Amino acid sequence: MPTPIAELGEFALIDRLTLQHQTTQSSTLKGVGDDAAVLCAPEGQVQVVTTDLLLEGVHFDLTYVPLKHLGYKAVMVNLSDVFAMNAKPAQITVSIGISSKFSVEQIDELYEGIYLAASRFGVDVVGGDTSASLNGLVISITALGYARQEEVVYRSGAKPTDLICVSGNLGAAYMGLMLLEREKRVFETDPTPYFTPDFDGREYLIERQLKPEARGDVISTLLSHGIQPTAMLDISDGLSSELLHLAQASHVGIRLYEERIPIDHETFAAAEDLHLSPIAVALNGGEDYELLFTVPLSYADQIRTIPGVHIIGHTTEADEGCHLITGDGSLSPLEAQGWNAQQKLQENSQK
Amino acid sequence: MPTPIAELGEFALIDRLTLQHQTTQSSTLKGVGDDAAVLCAPEGQVQVVTTDLLLEGVHFDLTYVPLKHLGYKAVMVNLSDVFAMNAKPAQITVSIGISSKFSVEQIDELYEGIYLAASRFGVDVVGGDTSASLNGLVISITALGYARQEEVVYRSGAKPTDLICVSGNLGAAYMGLMLLEREKRVFETDPTPYFTPDFDGREYLIERQLKPEARGDVISTLLSHGIQPTAMLDISDGLSSELLHLAQASHVGIRLYEERIPIDHETFAAAEDLHLSPIAVALNGGEDYELLFTVPLSYADQIRTIPGVHIIGHTTEADEGCHLITGDGSLSPLEAQGWNAQQKLQENSQK
Repeated sequence: MPTPIAELGEFALIDRLTLQHQTTQSSTLKGVGDDAAVLCAPEGQVQVVTTDLLLEGVHFDLTYVPLKHLGYKAVMVNLSDVFAMNAKPAQITVSIGISSKFSVEQIDELYEGIYLAASRFGVDVVGGDTSASLNGLVISITALGYARQEEVVYRSGAKPTDLICVSGNLGAAYMGLMLLEREKRVFETDPTPYFTPDFDGREYLIERQLKPEARGDVISTLLSHGIQPTAMLDISDGLSSELLHLAQASHVGIRLYEERIPIDHETFAAAEDLHLSPIAVALNGGEDYELLFTVPLSYADQIRTIPGVHIIGHTTEADEGCHLITGDGSLSPLEAQGWNAQQKLQENSQK
Repeated sequence: MPTPIAELGEFALIDRLTLQHQTTQSSTLKGVGDDAAVLCAPEGQVQVVTTDLLLEGVHFDLTYVPLKHLGYKAVMVNLSDVFAMNAKPAQITVSIGISSKFSVEQIDELYEGIYLAASRFGVDVVGGDTSASLNGLVISITALGYARQEEVVYRSGAKPTDLICVSGNLGAAYMGLMLLEREKRVFETDPTPYFTPDFDGREYLIERQLKPEARGDVISTLLSHGIQPTAMLDISDGLSSELLHLAQASHVGIRLYEERIPIDHETFAAAEDLHLSPIAVALNGGEDYELLFTVPLSYADQIRTIPGVHIIGHTTEADEGCHLITGDGSLSPLEAQGWNAQQKLQENSQK
């Protein structure tokens, strides 16, 4: 029998969700339990702070997102921003708004995912807020991390002729979302208790959507190669949009080579099944949580030895603009997509 | 003509809300505009971190809360937590979820309140997230502040025989809420375009509800008197509830003298009008954002010289329990009220 949250009450729920968690970072002096947490940056390091708000029905659909995965992802998207500053995450705060449709056991599941993601990088949960919500689930996470000041990488540091690099592959999370949405529609058209979604051979795409991993491993690898990017950001809104941010902040132009954009074969196959352009998906899909960074041209040979990192183009003088170079050598301007990127992408693809 | 948010788009909205804001704290190395803000604690100081989630329909009702006041209050409740650690606030991040019913001009108003509250204490807005929301307005703020480690005051530091002190007066914000709710019901029963709410002589209560002030002035005054509290917290959930937190964290008992609880005459009058017990309102009303703190008994004379600070009782050994002492000297146990404190209070008062 699921336990109603009202039965437990606010303070008992907070205790249940936080008391079993031991903090391990030396920079955490006091975690949950007072008006505020108390932190102390490691000697000689500065702090980075980032925050993300996730709303039911906008950022996630509980018809197909398991709560444990949701908790995991909510943490990962924040840690991804910390890594994108070339910093090491150390603490998070977690605020949730919960409607009465949730049981205590479901909130336990959400927190299981939160703690699992935090533990992957030894991150402490040091505070938060727990509130009733009238309309669905609200998750707000703030992540804190540390780095030496000279190690912090901004999006503004790229110089013309830098190499543009990306980790992993792009568009998979978006295709995972499309498949989840497709199966949801199938179920809604013919709801049967025996319904099983059909993700055969597309498990990787589903995992990229439901369980993204912040690329702390890439940060460590670059460090071990003695490479400090000149500019870096994580890809949350889609490659195009992030490249334009980088270009604007660094005052450079962009040459992106279409054929070098890393796309997994499952992404290709699924995009073709759904009559979407794989390149459009990789450019605008979003939620990849891969790292996009620039390095001086002189690092080219070293970068090529790093598995899973791809050189996809280079920067130019700002007045040359931002372009995608297609296979036949023709140039088309890079275009940004904001909030409604995913809807737009669908509309464009269906034209 | 109000401008629809969709017309502006996400990135232009963020620019509009953040670009005019100049950071002034030396601890802010980089504010809005990258994957994360970059901060550097002042030499020899530790950082405190606190966060609050405010949801439309749960924490505020836009029928009677002006957006500018809402923004102001959302910041103040967080700064109040920073002061309650005996720290100085320096930065906030602000995340908002906005449904399509809001115009750009309304969000401007909300941010006017946010910036006004931040500027009261020289606080920088260093980051945040802006998202669409399906259901009403969501505001999540994280506040960061600094203090020397030995100056940080926890709720766990009270010793038996400490004096229990409170700033300002209690219950006024709750009575303000009751009046706002009453006028809302009057309007709903007979909606006319000429409706004017009747708050005659009760303006102070309305202000306490709509525009609370974090008590940074009390922190400065205590510092100037050389008084460092042994324990401190801010009163957000009501005096009873906070005293029980203090007792539990500090392992002490509580003797609270009913007749010493500071209650404004407007609170008294309004409570009597609405057939509520003024003492119950002061004990459980919540949202006072006053400071509750303990000091050693030896500070009694000094505390009495501070205007607006009241000694309301003292701590005891833990095994003596937590009690309210009424005018005739009889003891009744202090009781905690969580989430649904306000509803419960109404129910109890109406019994």
